[in-house]
Amino acid sequence: MYQSSESLGRLVSVLSRMPGIGRKTAGRLAFYILKMSREEAKELADAVLEVKEKVGNCSVCFNISENDPCNICTDQRRDKSIICVVEEASDIIALEKAEEFNPAYHVLGGRLSPLDGIGPDDLNIKSLFARLDGSVSEVIIATNPDVEGEATAMYLNKLVTPFGVKVTRIARGLPVGGDLEYADGVTITRALQGRQEL
Amino acid sequence: MYQSSESLGRLVSVLSRMPGIGRKTAGRLAFYILKMSREEAKELADAVLEVKEKVGNCSVCFNISENDPCNICTDQRRDKSIICVVEEASDIIALEKAEEFNPAYHVLGGRLSPLDGIGPDDLNIKSLFARLDGSVSEVIIATNPDVEGEATAMYLNKLVTPFGVKVTRIARGLPVGGDLEYADGVTITRALQGRQEL
Repeated sequence: MYQSSESLGRLVSVLSRMPGIGRKTAGRLAFYILKMSREEAKELADAVLEVKEKVGNCSVCFNISENDPCNICTDQRRDKSIICVVEEASDIIALEKAEEFNPAYHVLGGRLSPLDGIGPDDLNIKSLFARLDGSVSEVIIATNPDVEGEATAMYLNKLVTPFGVKVTRIARGLPVGGDLEYADGVTITRALQGRQEL
Repeated sequence: MYQSSESLGRLVSVLSRMPGIGRKTAGRLAFYILKMSREEAKELADAVLEVKEKVGNCSVCFNISENDPCNICTDQRRDKSIICVVEEASDIIALEKAEEFNPAYHVLGGRLSPLDGIGPDDLNIKSLFARLDGSVSEVIIATNPDVEGEATAMYLNKLVTPFGVKVTRIARGLPVGGDLEYADGVTITRALQGRQEL
């Protein structure tokens, strides 16, 4: 295949390693970067390096953070008696969109997935138990509502219950604004199982 | 909105300026970059800077290139009597996929678009005329088959014809492997107008 420049080819190949970026998109992005001003390109390169340089993990909850402990763990206005367990730090950003919800978090760093060789020891589970020192009254398990997420939730439930804290799971049901007609059977089943009195 | 880290926010905002990358995709990419090893992040940043550093434009055909003149302009095996005019350097990569087609190129750097304030003086048109010194027998206009591309083609046709060279336009018609049933009316009209004897 014709290649107009080696360094452009290299940029395309680096970009196309990223998730959801195929060779075509990578090519379009590379041409865009080529058309950027030198300052903009520098800004992009610096932002990539800076994020690796500055951002680490909170040693308490494993959220990504520039400080340790992170801003959530040091926030005095949060209800530290509730720990919300998530798979990835990006899930915290999603959960923080909820109103009137100010728990502490705990990032597992993945989910149980025997097929991918990910077992309990690969996740931040022991550090979760270390936090259950009596000050915590509820653990909300907010792993994703898919097969591995559910399995991880069940596994955690079994292990956390002996600590004498309430273990809850986020509700599965119809998304707000959704349409019964287009919902799948499993979701409808869950919505019916989780029905509440009005 | 909750932000876990300022530098992550900055990376998301830089990434989301790129074409086809919205805030959600930018967020996903930023988290991917965060999970990269330091070496991989450095490789990405370097590739971005290197492309700006090394890649310039060929002074003859305005193709992007690390050398001047570019590899195509200095290639002795090419048929320099044919100049294929394209909008962008990325179009050359697409045209080079064609078999038995080895012309010289000329990159306009855009197309006529009065609404966007892009007139003839904003494109590499005068430099095209300078190349029509008698050694060129055919100019193939390969601007995109859309409204602005067609307008640019007609404009160029009028100006190039007086130089006494043959001016041709790439064929519009049904894409190979396409389906008459799903083709739009304009494409079918063009395919019929461009029919050839078997």
